[in-house]
Amino acid sequence: MGKSLRGTLVVGQSGGPTPVINASLAGVIGEAQQHDCFTGIYGLVHGIEGALKEELLDLGSETPENLDLLSRTPASALGSCRHKLSAADYERILEAFRTHNVRHFVYIGGNDSMDTCHRIWSLATEEGYEIQVMGVPKTIDNDLAYTDHCPGYGSAARFLALATRDTGRDLESMATFDDVTILEAMGRNAGWLAAASVLGQTSEYEAPHLVYVPEVAFDEARFLGDVARVHGRLGRVFVVVSEGIRDTEGQFVGQHAQRGISSDAFGHPVHALSTGVAAYLTDLVRKQLGLQARFLRPGLIGRALSACMVETDRKEALAVGRQAVAHLAAGESGHMVTLERLCGEPYHWTTGLAPLAEVANAEHLLPREYINEMGNTVTEAFWRYGLPLIDGPLPPLARLQGSRVPSGVVQQVLREKDTSALGS
Amino acid sequence: MGKSLRGTLVVGQSGGPTPVINASLAGVIGEAQQHDCFTGIYGLVHGIEGALKEELLDLGSETPENLDLLSRTPASALGSCRHKLSAADYERILEAFRTHNVRHFVYIGGNDSMDTCHRIWSLATEEGYEIQVMGVPKTIDNDLAYTDHCPGYGSAARFLALATRDTGRDLESMATFDDVTILEAMGRNAGWLAAASVLGQTSEYEAPHLVYVPEVAFDEARFLGDVARVHGRLGRVFVVVSEGIRDTEGQFVGQHAQRGISSDAFGHPVHALSTGVAAYLTDLVRKQLGLQARFLRPGLIGRALSACMVETDRKEALAVGRQAVAHLAAGESGHMVTLERLCGEPYHWTTGLAPLAEVANAEHLLPREYINEMGNTVTEAFWRYGLPLIDGPLPPLARLQGSRVPSGVVQQVLREKDTSALGS
Repeated sequence: MGKSLRGTLVVGQSGGPTPVINASLAGVIGEAQQHDCFTGIYGLVHGIEGALKEELLDLGSETPENLDLLSRTPASALGSCRHKLSAADYERILEAFRTHNVRHFVYIGGNDSMDTCHRIWSLATEEGYEIQVMGVPKTIDNDLAYTDHCPGYGSAARFLALATRDTGRDLESMATFDDVTILEAMGRNAGWLAAASVLGQTSEYEAPHLVYVPEVAFDEARFLGDVARVHGRLGRVFVVVSEGIRDTEGQFVGQHAQRGISSDAFGHPVHALSTGVAAYLTDLVRKQLGLQARFLRPGLIGRALSACMVETDRKEALAVGRQAVAHLAAGESGHMVTLERLCGEPYHWTTGLAPLAEVANAEHLLPREYINEMGNTVTEAFWRYGLPLIDGPLPPLARLQGSRVPSGVVQQVLREKDTSALGS
Repeated sequence: MGKSLRGTLVVGQSGGPTPVINASLAGVIGEAQQHDCFTGIYGLVHGIEGALKEELLDLGSETPENLDLLSRTPASALGSCRHKLSAADYERILEAFRTHNVRHFVYIGGNDSMDTCHRIWSLATEEGYEIQVMGVPKTIDNDLAYTDHCPGYGSAARFLALATRDTGRDLESMATFDDVTILEAMGRNAGWLAAASVLGQTSEYEAPHLVYVPEVAFDEARFLGDVARVHGRLGRVFVVVSEGIRDTEGQFVGQHAQRGISSDAFGHPVHALSTGVAAYLTDLVRKQLGLQARFLRPGLIGRALSACMVETDRKEALAVGRQAVAHLAAGESGHMVTLERLCGEPYHWTTGLAPLAEVANAEHLLPREYINEMGNTVTEAFWRYGLPLIDGPLPPLARLQGSRVPSGVVQQVLREKDTSALGS
């Protein structure tokens, strides 16, 4: 910890948006406005591309009212990007930073962004340009290491918990309906989001009955066995799958179908639609088990929907943004702000710091103890982890309390009628 | 209007659930508990199937607390069904009603349910069995006639408005992303739900840029032209389509692809996935325009998600349930309770009555004046109709206020460096 540099602060947002990524931005701007060491507060338009193209926004006079509204606005207000940087790009960025006397850089993003942040810092240090950098975690995938969880995950997780519970109730209430429903959750490598679909469940009869995540190799035969077994017991099956589940050889499930290879495993011609794994499995269930099946694919809706924003998630996102700037003002550099869980129940949290270099090279997958032995749902331990992050438990739903009216009365009346008809 | 019959009241829920169908049920039960003429209050388990199988639930002692919770619980608490009744079924239902001294029947549902309700009444009248019946409107599709709108529509419409706006913002914020996104809305015959996707839009730059509904024949060439034009202007296109759009010959668009016929219009082999019209159009855009495209298919999530329940919708659903019973207690029969709009802005409403026979035989499609001339989005008139039903306008989102930092500075510095390098 030392004295803070005096100069411009630049902030950027990177990768896929979340419902609360703007809360982190609001935290950064609001905190930066409080410190004299920041002679300017600029935003990068479309993340690091804004540095390359010199597209900067002056954020110094955003009002507290607009910052509050910003903290409740999903998607990336500065614009985001997915840009693989070349060595020349890094030089160019540093040149832009020098030109605008940028002495502080805050990057809100996932692993790749933490890597970018770290490389800029390393290069500047090599070249003798003094700059302080700080990373702010953001990803609905929840796959950053050294933090208990990532801002953005809670809100996307709540969407999945609500969507699964409410859609499960809907399906349960129909006397005749598709036997099998398969919901596709985002998550290319990590199963955190698919796992969150269980968090609205109050009994094993309710959705989801089966959950498959990329951390466990997916076996089609075992999957079909699971579906047949649950169907035999309950008459309906609600399955949640991560988009990124892989087979034992590490291939994405249904990849051949998704890529439009001319025939699938059953010799059927395959259409070139990128319909995703849920569509593939729906078809598999129909053909192999002869059951009615449908799939749900909310896609980006699940990471964007403001109606599912979690208040704790928003507050944490705001706090990691604020803390990043407070640490810069205190002379810190080269770290990502983390979230630390002080207590699970009641939930208490605080922020911490982790070195960028370490965060950038790690990936935090769902630990094995959060997945059951069969690899087809999650454990109690995941519940304890996940529930506070969605501001859970979810608001309760009603069940009718009334008892069944004695049946068989109509039959008896009909029998009596028959008898009297015979007797007459 | 006459004296009410004395006897058991039976209530059932039918067809696809909505987020507020249980609010109507809560209204029916709560009101029935207030009147002495109802000697019992029974619910049909799984709609009219409950009458056929004599599966009834005693609802007489549901508490006010549970009824309030029920009014906030999505899906059909009594269970629902889609059951085409035979003549023998009707006789059997009447027998069950006689046996349990059912003198009042309330059916919560759409057109088919109003027809069922009417037929039971007619048959009873023919056979000299005295019964009063009343229909309660319910459908997210909003296609019932003689009512300004249907309970359930507002909440499903709000989901679509939010999902479109928030996902559109998400996509807009990415520098590099799929060019075209196609969201599939429910609605087999009527475009009310797809139309509602516009209700969160604040400028023509925002999603949705194009909306296609079943009321206008869909032309693939014109669609591709629309997409290419918007893409040329904005660099991205957000399309919303009703699942039930049809071509000029009345065939569902992409039907051949969805049905698994061996080759599609382009001679490609077709997979037997029921992936829906959005997946079909996504593929069409990729192949014909060479653009990146993806589809979103929230499916049942859109009609089930409790997080998008609209308070006005809930109150109206409760009111039509209550009113149905109040009318029975006042001796009325053979009607569906309707919603009447007294004023659009500020929104005021009341309930009315329409004869079941007329409601059962009508379908309320999106009127032509709600669709623009090109048939690719909706008009201002639809806005005025739809906005109050989603408790709109939606909560505002922030835009950053800051001005662009003068650019070209880096270029100039680099030029000066070059010059000084040359000069040295």
